[in-house]
Amino acid sequence: MKTSKASFGEGSPEHSEGYAATKPINVGLLGIGTVGGGTFTVLQRNAEEITRRAGRPIRITVVADRNLELANKVTGGACRVTDDAFSVVADPEVDIVIELIGGYGVAKELVMKAIANGKHVVTANKALLATHGNEIFKAAQDKNVMVAFEAAVAGGIPIIKAVREGLTANRIEWIAGIINGTTNFILSEMRDKGLSFDTVLKEAQRLGYAEADPTFDIEGVDAAHKITILSALAFGTPVQFNKAYIEGISKLDAADIKYAEQLGYRIKLLGITKRTPEGVELRVHPTLIPAKRLIANVEGAMNAVLVQGDAVGATLYYGKGAGAEPTASAVIADLVDVTRMHTADPENRVPHLAFQPNAMADLPILAMDDVTTSYYLRLRVQDQPGVLADITRILADEQISIDAVIQKEPGEGETQTDLIMLTHQTREKRINAAIVKIEALGVVAGKVTKLRLEELGK
Amino acid sequence: MKTSKASFGEGSPEHSEGYAATKPINVGLLGIGTVGGGTFTVLQRNAEEITRRAGRPIRITVVADRNLELANKVTGGACRVTDDAFSVVADPEVDIVIELIGGYGVAKELVMKAIANGKHVVTANKALLATHGNEIFKAAQDKNVMVAFEAAVAGGIPIIKAVREGLTANRIEWIAGIINGTTNFILSEMRDKGLSFDTVLKEAQRLGYAEADPTFDIEGVDAAHKITILSALAFGTPVQFNKAYIEGISKLDAADIKYAEQLGYRIKLLGITKRTPEGVELRVHPTLIPAKRLIANVEGAMNAVLVQGDAVGATLYYGKGAGAEPTASAVIADLVDVTRMHTADPENRVPHLAFQPNAMADLPILAMDDVTTSYYLRLRVQDQPGVLADITRILADEQISIDAVIQKEPGEGETQTDLIMLTHQTREKRINAAIVKIEALGVVAGKVTKLRLEELGK
Repeated sequence: MKTSKASFGEGSPEHSEGYAATKPINVGLLGIGTVGGGTFTVLQRNAEEITRRAGRPIRITVVADRNLELANKVTGGACRVTDDAFSVVADPEVDIVIELIGGYGVAKELVMKAIANGKHVVTANKALLATHGNEIFKAAQDKNVMVAFEAAVAGGIPIIKAVREGLTANRIEWIAGIINGTTNFILSEMRDKGLSFDTVLKEAQRLGYAEADPTFDIEGVDAAHKITILSALAFGTPVQFNKAYIEGISKLDAADIKYAEQLGYRIKLLGITKRTPEGVELRVHPTLIPAKRLIANVEGAMNAVLVQGDAVGATLYYGKGAGAEPTASAVIADLVDVTRMHTADPENRVPHLAFQPNAMADLPILAMDDVTTSYYLRLRVQDQPGVLADITRILADEQISIDAVIQKEPGEGETQTDLIMLTHQTREKRINAAIVKIEALGVVAGKVTKLRLEELGK
Repeated sequence: MKTSKASFGEGSPEHSEGYAATKPINVGLLGIGTVGGGTFTVLQRNAEEITRRAGRPIRITVVADRNLELANKVTGGACRVTDDAFSVVADPEVDIVIELIGGYGVAKELVMKAIANGKHVVTANKALLATHGNEIFKAAQDKNVMVAFEAAVAGGIPIIKAVREGLTANRIEWIAGIINGTTNFILSEMRDKGLSFDTVLKEAQRLGYAEADPTFDIEGVDAAHKITILSALAFGTPVQFNKAYIEGISKLDAADIKYAEQLGYRIKLLGITKRTPEGVELRVHPTLIPAKRLIANVEGAMNAVLVQGDAVGATLYYGKGAGAEPTASAVIADLVDVTRMHTADPENRVPHLAFQPNAMADLPILAMDDVTTSYYLRLRVQDQPGVLADITRILADEQISIDAVIQKEPGEGETQTDLIMLTHQTREKRINAAIVKIEALGVVAGKVTKLRLEELGK
């Protein structure tokens, strides 16, 4: 059955004789921006090696982009180019559609039409899946097509595959990930150079690590999209982005990074999802982590995801979370997966969200008030006797116990000073209640700064 | 088509209504030692969750072990028990055989018989696959059955899956892994406590981190089995264990760990495989790594594997490399994979060694003489003028350039001292030629200590 030779790409075969590739699988690519361009380039450069893995050549036959000039430039005449993406999802010759347009608008329409037309879909669109994934996966199931999305979370790190297939023996307990490179770059620079958020953001924008409008990254929305998808995979629940708690890093003070370091912690923007007896925690916020943890030492724009399973314990996955070729690596891995599996009985393929569609759990997402974690508090207090006693009394009344306290000496000629406290685990509503009472004390100036702290291991 | 309810295990369903499992897939387990016991326990404890993922209950129907008393104790009457493993691989009721006996003898015979009888095989046996894998995979291909072996490398870390499926877009450039927990534990303790190899080995044996006969671990044989398998997966070559260069840690001097640290490096036992224009490097030896690398900070019995791909860059995978439940996690992930995929057209399943059987490459494994790396040299020299000049002249003659030198002050009343040098990259044969000449110098006492050094990234 294998008769024709791989014709796409320029790699010369280094493998043993007798290998001749079969009919190519045809791909329509929607969007030839950074990731689309990377996908085109890598698929062409590594065509021979990818074919040897997939068993068939994977060939981009048509590219759709509004910018025809760019599309023509990138593809260099190697395939058809169109500005009509809808013609691609309706093209009878196309087996797999790669959606790299982004957003919830036309991207959703195109994905749904591709599925309706019986195309398999590969997408890097976390925003779309986190918000409309349930509808999309349902449609795909009804049409017996695959929707693959490794590139939607942590770029080139095969974390979707690890959770969906590599850890299937486990009752997954929690996942915590550095899944936004922009914010990790900013936090690394703030710590390293002692600079303010605003200063580093400007630098990150200049270097291309942050967008002109960085809101989605710095406010945690992008990380929340990703942890929403990981949460569904880990616990076999529908995606529930609208229930996620989201707090970014734009209000983070450089002083807190410094104090955290003095206490042996680093501050990272983590996406966290955790199974509890009452429901699932789903949250994104700046988090203190012990500095000795491997994940605390993930610097710059790198990503890392820590998964705790009941059998395997903690496993960690680390790599580049963004960029043209790292993200293309994940897109193409999905293309190979689809190529390898698309002829399989749909009942026996790997399910989209790791669990069989008829075996999904309906676990509630906990309100933030009901989340349990530890806390870092920074207060501006009068430097006078009894202040610490007043504050610890309030915490004790809320049954919050204290793990560590730093009281700074007041500066020359000052009467106020910084008081930093770490608490043991408690409910968010208890700490909030305590903070209201603490802020009402006459000896406490202004607002209390509250950050969450996770030990992430023993 | 889904009519009967999952009956194995005690988990109560938490998922939505209407889910009823179909016919179980039947597993015969060979060997109920540490990993076998862990597999039985986890499969029972997480039965409900695993079934929801796999789409069918996965049921151990028979356990074979020479120790019937142990087998009866572990299984507690939940399945049949026999001391005749050959009856299991011939049992018409068994769909999948798990081989956890180990070694190349009866284990090989059983695996080959299971395949001949049309059973899928899951094994943790790296020694068997590294030495007889080509024959086993060929037999499996001929009989259209799967041989899955996630547990053979790095225990619970899904590294086989990552390389075989997660990184298929990439031309893999190299893999470097801490893939033996015993030796990493020993090296961590030697560094941490400044103790000798012999002292720490005894401690490791007392704590159960090293076997009574630790040869396979400490001499690097176990790591070589594992890197042999990873090398085949990465480059699409047959397994070639007999070509691997293997050097363990039993001759490692605590002084070198200390000097390495002063130079900013940690010493780890790495399994390394690298693609070069002349062939594939395949080697295991103690290696200096920059202390700031994440993998240099993997301590105790933990494992980590770093994979460099041309598109994704470096990705790292970290977790427990041994133990009952971590290894069981990998065994069961394979069971779920086989359950999900065994009905698929064999042409379209994931190939055993990542590349299609008819597309394997026949790359040579390089002799150690032709390997290129950097070196750490420690020499005992007379503390007199001209010594360094003599030595650097010899290195220059071999075109070896020097990256760093430490010359210690001689101890009180001593006339000799330690000279430590780091070189830039060179061929192993060049450094060996230089060492012969250096050892012939009158001012150099005894043998030169040579260790290899890898930067593992920029």
